[in-house]
Amino acid sequence: MKILVINCGSSSLKYQLFDMTNETVLGKGLVERIGIEGSLLTQNVNGEKYTVEAEMKDHKAAMKHVFDALLHPEKGLISSLDEINAIGHRVLHGGEELTDSIIIDEHVKDVIKEYIKFGPLHNPANLMGIEACEALVPGKPNVAVFDTSFHQTMPASSYMYGLPYEYYEKYRIRKFGFHGTSHKYITRRTAELLNKPLDEINIITVHLGNGSSLAAVKNGKCYDTSMGLTPLEGLVMGTRCGDLDPTVLTFIMEEEGMKPHDLNQMLNKKSGFLGISGLSSDARDLENAADEGNQRAKLALDMFVNRTKRYLGGYLLELKKVDAICFAGGIGENSAEMRERLVGGLEFFGIKLDAEKNKTRSEAKISADDSKVQIWVVPTNEELMIARDTLDLVK
Amino acid sequence: MKILVINCGSSSLKYQLFDMTNETVLGKGLVERIGIEGSLLTQNVNGEKYTVEAEMKDHKAAMKHVFDALLHPEKGLISSLDEINAIGHRVLHGGEELTDSIIIDEHVKDVIKEYIKFGPLHNPANLMGIEACEALVPGKPNVAVFDTSFHQTMPASSYMYGLPYEYYEKYRIRKFGFHGTSHKYITRRTAELLNKPLDEINIITVHLGNGSSLAAVKNGKCYDTSMGLTPLEGLVMGTRCGDLDPTVLTFIMEEEGMKPHDLNQMLNKKSGFLGISGLSSDARDLENAADEGNQRAKLALDMFVNRTKRYLGGYLLELKKVDAICFAGGIGENSAEMRERLVGGLEFFGIKLDAEKNKTRSEAKISADDSKVQIWVVPTNEELMIARDTLDLVK
Repeated sequence: MKILVINCGSSSLKYQLFDMTNETVLGKGLVERIGIEGSLLTQNVNGEKYTVEAEMKDHKAAMKHVFDALLHPEKGLISSLDEINAIGHRVLHGGEELTDSIIIDEHVKDVIKEYIKFGPLHNPANLMGIEACEALVPGKPNVAVFDTSFHQTMPASSYMYGLPYEYYEKYRIRKFGFHGTSHKYITRRTAELLNKPLDEINIITVHLGNGSSLAAVKNGKCYDTSMGLTPLEGLVMGTRCGDLDPTVLTFIMEEEGMKPHDLNQMLNKKSGFLGISGLSSDARDLENAADEGNQRAKLALDMFVNRTKRYLGGYLLELKKVDAICFAGGIGENSAEMRERLVGGLEFFGIKLDAEKNKTRSEAKISADDSKVQIWVVPTNEELMIARDTLDLVK
Repeated sequence: MKILVINCGSSSLKYQLFDMTNETVLGKGLVERIGIEGSLLTQNVNGEKYTVEAEMKDHKAAMKHVFDALLHPEKGLISSLDEINAIGHRVLHGGEELTDSIIIDEHVKDVIKEYIKFGPLHNPANLMGIEACEALVPGKPNVAVFDTSFHQTMPASSYMYGLPYEYYEKYRIRKFGFHGTSHKYITRRTAELLNKPLDEINIITVHLGNGSSLAAVKNGKCYDTSMGLTPLEGLVMGTRCGDLDPTVLTFIMEEEGMKPHDLNQMLNKKSGFLGISGLSSDARDLENAADEGNQRAKLALDMFVNRTKRYLGGYLLELKKVDAICFAGGIGENSAEMRERLVGGLEFFGIKLDAEKNKTRSEAKISADDSKVQIWVVPTNEELMIARDTLDLVK
């Protein structure tokens, strides 16, 4: 059983081919600069690189090159497209209608189109990837796996905003949450690690990377999460602002004569670590700069700690009894220093990080044996989660 | 030593006269509908009411009637204005410059004017009250007590937003925090109640009323707070939305063609409890409606719990070791049910509410004796705090 996993951005396309008999990655690749001069496909199989430079004017053209690369007699992975049993697509926003991964049909595509309103960059690209696969390998099952669907179990008290109710009724303005595929993967893996039934675990999944979000998971289901209507809400991120006083926006718009579109660009692309430090959107760069005395780099990291603690602490109180706090993502998996800042020194509440165990960069329990809440590093794997959901739906 | 405390709104004026030899309130009053037809002054002395209906076209006219009422031979409180030693004014926004209560001079008035940009309704009214007193009782010391000043000890990691740094440099866009006079009062009172030096207490002050905010107080000083650039950020409030995904605003503006000013009005006046429930901005009304099965009233209260826990839990982690959680404000002092929902069931973390003691509506410790964190009801008294600060500055 081979599953192809596709993740389309506005000008990029990532793919991985899984052999699901043993959940191994047979190979993977990336297409960059789709629709831009200098389109480039890079495929990686067993450490060996294969590149293709060609004109790829849209996602369909790029997808054609992907299939060609997969079928390449020497550098490829398969000898016939028939070997691919199904294709799993990462889709950003499935709204309220699509509460789980699903085999794609016209209705699913209509919903993806409808939610372009809240995912204007991602949903159109995701749809292009789906339609390219439908055109190039007709009849093959395509599955949509949404960033939003894991969070659809949230109660209204978590997902509603303090706005006049009509905005929810009219537009579905509410918190949706993102990174759902990652939070779902971490949740299932943690149930295995804790050796408890999925529906009996209360955990907090802490996905910290270039984009960052937390989820409060109650009885194996999402109860609350830090991202909102879009991935802009919550923590300070690489280039996203996270939580703000709403008045900040109206003030800047009036003072600077800024239009909503430009404001959105600024909040999504020029804010966060990059905007605060004026240096970089990458936490590693900031850690290095802070070590050398850069005060704004230090400030950006201090703010990241402040905001992450706000959600982490909030979710501890919401869940009331917590089995584990689980770190994942580029920062969550690799920065022992950041984990120490977030959950170190909490002995007062019975939460005890083990400084020695915390030195890990791979899957490990990093709390002391007598900690009331276990602390884990649980490296995430969104592509594998997409492949698993796809397999479940087509087998 | 008699101190007059003044709190001016855009069309209202509240006042209290304190005898600071024993911190008693000699009398108080309210002027409503200033600048509107039907202006009315109501003064209350020892339970006896005295009302004046007259044209009061501005705050100066209203202030004149206040002094007349205070001097009234039968219904008044003083026989000469000389008896008033100083006047303390509540001022909303003192920005970064005014970090403590201060005797008002031209510079102070300039700063109050400058911060009209972030307090467009309150700062102009506060200034009118000050100038009315200066004109009517010249030479009397006037003291400004700011809602923002208690929070000026926050570190930058608490007060900065995840925006391009230039917005802070250019406009001072940052978190200021409000209700500072209340948080300061509760903090000082709690130090007395815990019998610990002020600079050794770590507490969380939870002011829940029509407007609501929390403060994390570290060594007696504000370390973080939930309100922001303006009082709009943080919890869901009576008519204010609290935290939102910033994209919500740009989306509504574009879809509805709404201008920043109208958006601000909607977020400040038509949101929160009122907007969610469609019923009332008053938590008591919502509690009654929820008891009768109104689902949107129940939702509004559930959301209030969710958001308050987010900050409360966050501040527990930020402070790492906490002496007490202190409830104040209309909801915080009177709703045992709300306190139970916020800090009940937290035995897992060693925080133990005593259900029986929690039945109080007045100053009391409401946690179990073996709770790691004490829980208190500490009724707030902003007017007394203003009078005390005024006395300290003029004596």
